[in-house]
Amino acid sequence: MKAQQGLKIGILGGGQLARLLVLQAHRMGLEPHVLSEKSDDPAAQVTSHWHQGQTNLIKDLSAFCKNMDLVTFESEFIPAEALKTLDQTFSNKIFPDASLLRVLQDRLSQKNLLLERKIPSSPFVALNQPADLLQAYQLFKTGVVAKTRLGGYDGKGTFILKSKNDVSAFLKKQDLNSHGFIAEKLISFRRELALQVARNKNGKILFLPLVEIHQADNRLDWLQGPVRHSKLPDLQKKISSFLKKMNYVGVMAVELFDQGSDLIVNEIAPRVHNSGHYTIEALNIDQFSLHLLAGLNQDFPTLSLRCKNFSMTNLMGQGFTEINISSPLTGTLHWYGKLKNSLGRKMGHVTYLDSSARQALLERKRIKL
Amino acid sequence: MKAQQGLKIGILGGGQLARLLVLQAHRMGLEPHVLSEKSDDPAAQVTSHWHQGQTNLIKDLSAFCKNMDLVTFESEFIPAEALKTLDQTFSNKIFPDASLLRVLQDRLSQKNLLLERKIPSSPFVALNQPADLLQAYQLFKTGVVAKTRLGGYDGKGTFILKSKNDVSAFLKKQDLNSHGFIAEKLISFRRELALQVARNKNGKILFLPLVEIHQADNRLDWLQGPVRHSKLPDLQKKISSFLKKMNYVGVMAVELFDQGSDLIVNEIAPRVHNSGHYTIEALNIDQFSLHLLAGLNQDFPTLSLRCKNFSMTNLMGQGFTEINISSPLTGTLHWYGKLKNSLGRKMGHVTYLDSSARQALLERKRIKL
Repeated sequence: MKAQQGLKIGILGGGQLARLLVLQAHRMGLEPHVLSEKSDDPAAQVTSHWHQGQTNLIKDLSAFCKNMDLVTFESEFIPAEALKTLDQTFSNKIFPDASLLRVLQDRLSQKNLLLERKIPSSPFVALNQPADLLQAYQLFKTGVVAKTRLGGYDGKGTFILKSKNDVSAFLKKQDLNSHGFIAEKLISFRRELALQVARNKNGKILFLPLVEIHQADNRLDWLQGPVRHSKLPDLQKKISSFLKKMNYVGVMAVELFDQGSDLIVNEIAPRVHNSGHYTIEALNIDQFSLHLLAGLNQDFPTLSLRCKNFSMTNLMGQGFTEINISSPLTGTLHWYGKLKNSLGRKMGHVTYLDSSARQALLERKRIKL
Repeated sequence: MKAQQGLKIGILGGGQLARLLVLQAHRMGLEPHVLSEKSDDPAAQVTSHWHQGQTNLIKDLSAFCKNMDLVTFESEFIPAEALKTLDQTFSNKIFPDASLLRVLQDRLSQKNLLLERKIPSSPFVALNQPADLLQAYQLFKTGVVAKTRLGGYDGKGTFILKSKNDVSAFLKKQDLNSHGFIAEKLISFRRELALQVARNKNGKILFLPLVEIHQADNRLDWLQGPVRHSKLPDLQKKISSFLKKMNYVGVMAVELFDQGSDLIVNEIAPRVHNSGHYTIEALNIDQFSLHLLAGLNQDFPTLSLRCKNFSMTNLMGQGFTEINISSPLTGTLHWYGKLKNSLGRKMGHVTYLDSSARQALLERKRIKL
C-alpha cells in the first residue's frame, strides 16, 4: 500500500462537514481543496487551498474537479444536471458516484431503491396530485409523513399529517406540482438510532457503532452510544449487499427507527453525517478519515472503541450576541468557525467519553451562545 | 468565561509544531495565522491565513504581530535582537514572554536560571577559552558534555567528551570564540523522561503525565507512558514555583534524567514539544490546546487519560523515494505535509493507546519512508 501524501482531495462545499473532512485530510497528509462561495466559510478557513465558486454551477464544478486527484461532497443536494456533467467527465475521480447521488438525493428514487434492495423501510407513495395524498391517508391509517423529494434536511420539507384537517391544511399551502412530494406511512417507534458504514473501492466494508439519536426541532440535538440491537446483524447484512450492488464508495449514514422487534430505515445520506461526529474522539478511526480512506481505496483498520460509552451534544445558536461558557467543559469542544451566531444554527459540538449523557446535557446548559 | 471565537492567533514559524498548533486552534474556533517563509511549509498548508516572511527579521515580525490578538512561537530560536523589539512593542500579546525566551534560548542563562531557582540539574561551567574546558574535564571526572549556547536542538550542537582525546579533538574543530559553549558534567542515568506543564496568566498550573523517552541519533525516537516516579511530586513543586517566579505563560516541555533516587532536569523548552504529541489521542486535552488556553488565560479542564497506557513513535525519513505502508496501522497516524522525504527528517508520528510500545515499534517496521 502506497501512502497517498500530497494527493489533491477536492471537497464540494464549505460547511462544517467539509471543515471536519479537511482537518482529517491534513492529519493524513493529503492536500485538501475546498470549493465554496465565501472565503470565511467554515471549511475555507482551514486550508490554504480554497477555491471560490458555487457547487451548483457546472462551470465552477468543472474548473475545480479538473485539477483534483479525487473529489467528494459534503452534501448530496447538487443539481441533477451538474451531477450528470460530473459523472460524464470526472467519474473516475468522484466518490460516491455522481450517478448514485442523483438517485439518493431524491426521496422517491431513494425509497424505491430501498424497497428494491429489500432494506426494511416504511411504506410510501409518490404524490402527483392531491388525490394521491388523500388516498395515502386512508391507506396508511396511522397518519402520513409528507416529504419534499428534493433538498429536505434537518426536518426542512417534512410535514407530519395526523388528521384529515392536517391533510387539508397541507394541500392548501403546498403546490404538489412545483415541488415533488412523497407520502410515507407514519410509523410508531421506541426511539431513533443511527449508524455509519464505509465501503472502499475493493468492496471492504466497515460498520461503525449503532447510536441513539435525539432530535429537537427536527434536527439532531444529542446522541449516545454504543447501542445494541438484536436485529442489527441482519440489517448490516442487508446494507452490505445494498452497498455492494450499488458499488458504493465512501461513508454512508443510515438513520433508523427502533421498533423493538424491528429496525426500520428512515433515511440514508451518501456522506459523513452529524450523527458520526462523536467518532473523532470515541473510536480509533473517525468517519471523516474513513470516508477519505474509502475514496483512496485504502484498507480500513480494525475498529476499536476508546471508551465504554460516549455521547455528543450539538451546540446550536440560542440568540445570544456573545458565546459564554461558565467554566471548562469535561468534553471535547469543536467549533465550526461560524462567526454569525443565528438562532438554531449549528455552531459546534461537544463529545464526551465515559460520562453519562445526562451529565453532558447538564454541562451544555452552562454554554450560552 | 467568554469564548474567544475568531480571535487572531499568530504563530511564528511554519513547521510541524506550528501545524499541530494550528489544527487545534481550528477546533477551538480561533483564527490561526502563520508567519513562515514558504507557502508549502507544514503549517502554511493548514490555514487560509498564511503570511510570507522570516521569523528572524524584525520587519516581518512587526508587520505580522501588529494585526494579531495573540502571538506565540513554535521555536525559541529567534534572534535576541528581534525578541527585544517584540518585547518592547508587543509584550501584551506575546506568550511566553519574549524576554523569557531570550533567557531560555541560551543554554548558559537557562542553566543559571535553573540553578538560581533550585531546579535539580547537572553541574556546568561556561567555556570562554580552551583552558575552561580542560579545567571542567578535570573537575567533573566522569566526562563532559559540551553544548553550543544558542541554536542547539535534536542533538545538534551537543558533543559528548569522555576522554582527553575527545577534548583535544573537540578543541581542534570548534572555535569557542565564534560559538559560545557550556560544559556540563556527564552524568549517569537509568533512562530519560519528559513532561509538559502549562500555566495560564492567572497562575493556574496543569502538569501532563511523565513519559519515558528514547532517542536515536540524539533525537526523540519513541516514548511510552504514563510513568511514575517517587520524586515527581517534589519536582513538580519546584517547577511550579519556578514558573510562578518567571510569570511563565504557555506550555513548557521539561526533559529529565531518571537517576532512580533522583530526577534531574536536562533541558527545558518554552513551547510545545515532540514528547507531547501523544496527548492528542491519549488525554482529554492536548498540549497544543493547553498552550493556546494558557495564552487566552482560560481555565484548564481537569486532566484525564483516555487509556491505561500509550506510546508514540516518530516517523523519520529513511531515504526511500516513496512512502509505503504494508497494511493499515493500529495506531493513529499524523503526517506533517512535508513532501520532501530526506533522511532523518521528521515526517510524522503514530500514537498508540492501550497497546505495548513493543507492538508499536514492530508496526513501525512496516513503514518505508
